[in-house]
Amino acid sequence: MKHALVLAMLLLSVRTFAATPLPETDLAYDIVAGLTTEVGPRLAGTEAEARGRQWAVAKLQALGFSHVRIENFTVPTWIRGDERASVVAPYEQRLAITALGRSGATPATGTTAAVIGFASLDDLKSAPDAAVRDKIVYVSHAMRATQDGSSYEYFAPARLFAPAVAAQKGARAILVRSLGPDDSRHPHTGATHWSGGVAPIPAAALSNSDADNLERMLARSRVPVQLHLLLTPRSVGMRQSGNVIAEVPGTDPSAGLIAIGGHLDSWDLGTGALDDGAGVAIATAAAATLLSGDRPRDKPRRTVRLIWWGAEEMEPFGGRAYFGAHAREPHAVVAEADMGADRVWLLRAKFSASAAPVAKRLATALAPLGIGADVAPASEGEDIAEFLKAGVSSVALMQDLTRYFNYHHTADDTLNRVDPQQLRQCVSAWSAMLEIVANAPENLLVGGH
Amino acid sequence: MKHALVLAMLLLSVRTFAATPLPETDLAYDIVAGLTTEVGPRLAGTEAEARGRQWAVAKLQALGFSHVRIENFTVPTWIRGDERASVVAPYEQRLAITALGRSGATPATGTTAAVIGFASLDDLKSAPDAAVRDKIVYVSHAMRATQDGSSYEYFAPARLFAPAVAAQKGARAILVRSLGPDDSRHPHTGATHWSGGVAPIPAAALSNSDADNLERMLARSRVPVQLHLLLTPRSVGMRQSGNVIAEVPGTDPSAGLIAIGGHLDSWDLGTGALDDGAGVAIATAAAATLLSGDRPRDKPRRTVRLIWWGAEEMEPFGGRAYFGAHAREPHAVVAEADMGADRVWLLRAKFSASAAPVAKRLATALAPLGIGADVAPASEGEDIAEFLKAGVSSVALMQDLTRYFNYHHTADDTLNRVDPQQLRQCVSAWSAMLEIVANAPENLLVGGH
Repeated sequence: MKHALVLAMLLLSVRTFAATPLPETDLAYDIVAGLTTEVGPRLAGTEAEARGRQWAVAKLQALGFSHVRIENFTVPTWIRGDERASVVAPYEQRLAITALGRSGATPATGTTAAVIGFASLDDLKSAPDAAVRDKIVYVSHAMRATQDGSSYEYFAPARLFAPAVAAQKGARAILVRSLGPDDSRHPHTGATHWSGGVAPIPAAALSNSDADNLERMLARSRVPVQLHLLLTPRSVGMRQSGNVIAEVPGTDPSAGLIAIGGHLDSWDLGTGALDDGAGVAIATAAAATLLSGDRPRDKPRRTVRLIWWGAEEMEPFGGRAYFGAHAREPHAVVAEADMGADRVWLLRAKFSASAAPVAKRLATALAPLGIGADVAPASEGEDIAEFLKAGVSSVALMQDLTRYFNYHHTADDTLNRVDPQQLRQCVSAWSAMLEIVANAPENLLVGGH
Repeated sequence: MKHALVLAMLLLSVRTFAATPLPETDLAYDIVAGLTTEVGPRLAGTEAEARGRQWAVAKLQALGFSHVRIENFTVPTWIRGDERASVVAPYEQRLAITALGRSGATPATGTTAAVIGFASLDDLKSAPDAAVRDKIVYVSHAMRATQDGSSYEYFAPARLFAPAVAAQKGARAILVRSLGPDDSRHPHTGATHWSGGVAPIPAAALSNSDADNLERMLARSRVPVQLHLLLTPRSVGMRQSGNVIAEVPGTDPSAGLIAIGGHLDSWDLGTGALDDGAGVAIATAAAATLLSGDRPRDKPRRTVRLIWWGAEEMEPFGGRAYFGAHAREPHAVVAEADMGADRVWLLRAKFSASAAPVAKRLATALAPLGIGADVAPASEGEDIAEFLKAGVSSVALMQDLTRYFNYHHTADDTLNRVDPQQLRQCVSAWSAMLEIVANAPENLLVGGH
């Protein structure tokens, strides 16, 4: 009896090792390297994003996924143009800028105006319109590096909303300090929101190094600091985008499906390695561990649907298109990888009370990888936001964001920023998670799902 | 007697502290901050460099230096234009490049050709002309971070000479891996040499991140990698440059003068903080400790001449102009600060045998600052090269170059790269050095000087 028990435990532990394998190849790294080398930046709605979809289809078919297909949708598309800024008085020099997503354009010859600086979005909000009118507004903030990215969440409104506030007050244009904790010369782009009725004005991010320089100029100069600004982005109307979808078929359709993935599109400045080449690579490499390949292996109980969402950066168009097309299918668990390539350090999960043991098993499986468990429910993933709102169960494998925002949305988001060792840990964590949620005997479907 | 001795030693030690003061204000940091904020980049021969000279004159006069003046000369001037590179087949994407100094230009619409890659300058040299003709040459190398900058010296020929070799072999254009140990997206510019009779071709540096990407493409593609390249720099003929000179008068003209400084000009991409705002700042702050100011203080024995050389980056035009105008004056010691803002770690000196005790005193004074002494003679400083050739005594305070070449000649050479604490140590070292060489009782004049 004792021997039988030991044997059972051994078998169990063998199964545990199978459930949390160290990847045999560096499939995730291969995917990020391939995508950034062979496709490069993949701005939503562009031909480059379309090449990304073709690349993804070929890769997912070659890996042996089932039902590989593209589901098209259209997105309002915005294209970067020329972008230049110079201080013209009193301290003539170039400043490194980049247009924010959906920025308006200056005249083709640019525009020159005095700068008025604000330490925060709140300071801009409380300024009288007359002080801002016809000026180039500058807005600072104090984003810092945080492991959980909380400083990004806290200061993001400076990028998201200051341009619309400045436009409402009659500003000529706006420059925002880059939303990143670095002090490099690389400006950080990102979407900005024009609330209803506000006509977009030229809106750009200054690199943090240039923001420091401009702040010194504003502090030193006894005359208004004059800037010349040229930004020629264009909105080119509705263009085609799409989600690339692939599956690992499960054995029990009544158990619902597991939807995981990352987003295929990227900003146009870097090659979209961290954001979000790494995310699609992690989700794909993890899902690939459930493929039988040449080895006989049990199919998972639940179908795992892998999605490379399109067009996330400006707004989660791909996530909404997927939700619109598939919300009626029973989704047991949803999860998105969109936090770069550094290691997973925290598990967040959201399950119904009856499925609470699943969260416990996840915590147990992930602890050996150096991952803690949090009481906060999973709420991460722009592309799965509609499912989260609908109450679908979800898992968030929180990655270390301490370095991530140094490169986020910059030209420096390239393969050089990907640490293969940390990326492997992410794949191990996602593989362990998938094995558990795909095979859980519990009912994971919630409410209407 | 004993008490008198202790008192004498105390007075001596007070003098020692006076001789190697920790700077009371951050004058050096103030100078780099002022120069980079109020002037910015200072490309040789341009109006920006001229503004730099005016800024220097005002600053040196305000500090109380004597005989502050500009000595003009003219330099062949080269101006950067537009610069863009894209892979057009088989993997379409932009590459981050910057023209090398004195690069030729492409047609206004750019040029498209296949890339041929070489791992080193030697590989390019040994390639048959037919393999290179009409192609865009790419040359790699393996520069690494080294404290003494030796890896830069070793691999610099790839930038300095590969363009001329490629031109001689009939190449359409050339891209060189950036001469820096970083893996960022910032390309490193720098001068290249067209040996006699070779017509310049378009020549640019790829950022190291893009060099990695291009090398992956060359390894993966089964068809030639095609690049589109646009570079529109111009040589605009002879323009005015100048050296800014100031003095701390000494008491003994027969003892010769001490000539120290850094170079005022910079490349146009960054703000010239490390290269060489920090150098002029260190030399100036050290020389300023010899000014009497409001405190009664002995003048130094030797006149200390402070020089902010113009036009160093392309070739040491400023150093040569100064040598041409002043070589006949008795120069006792020359030294240049042109190694960024990180700490001094090694003393190199070159004195005649009769002045050997001076080198010993320097070593003793610098050891408490964590600075070792080397047996190799001082041979650093592009702007004092002619004096070194002429055998004038010299001191080189070798700074830690481990980080320096990450930012050298890039847009990221800004005030953010200056560590105030290490900069203070540099000023302390230079102050201690100046006090000793300016007041040494020995004869420091050599040969014709």
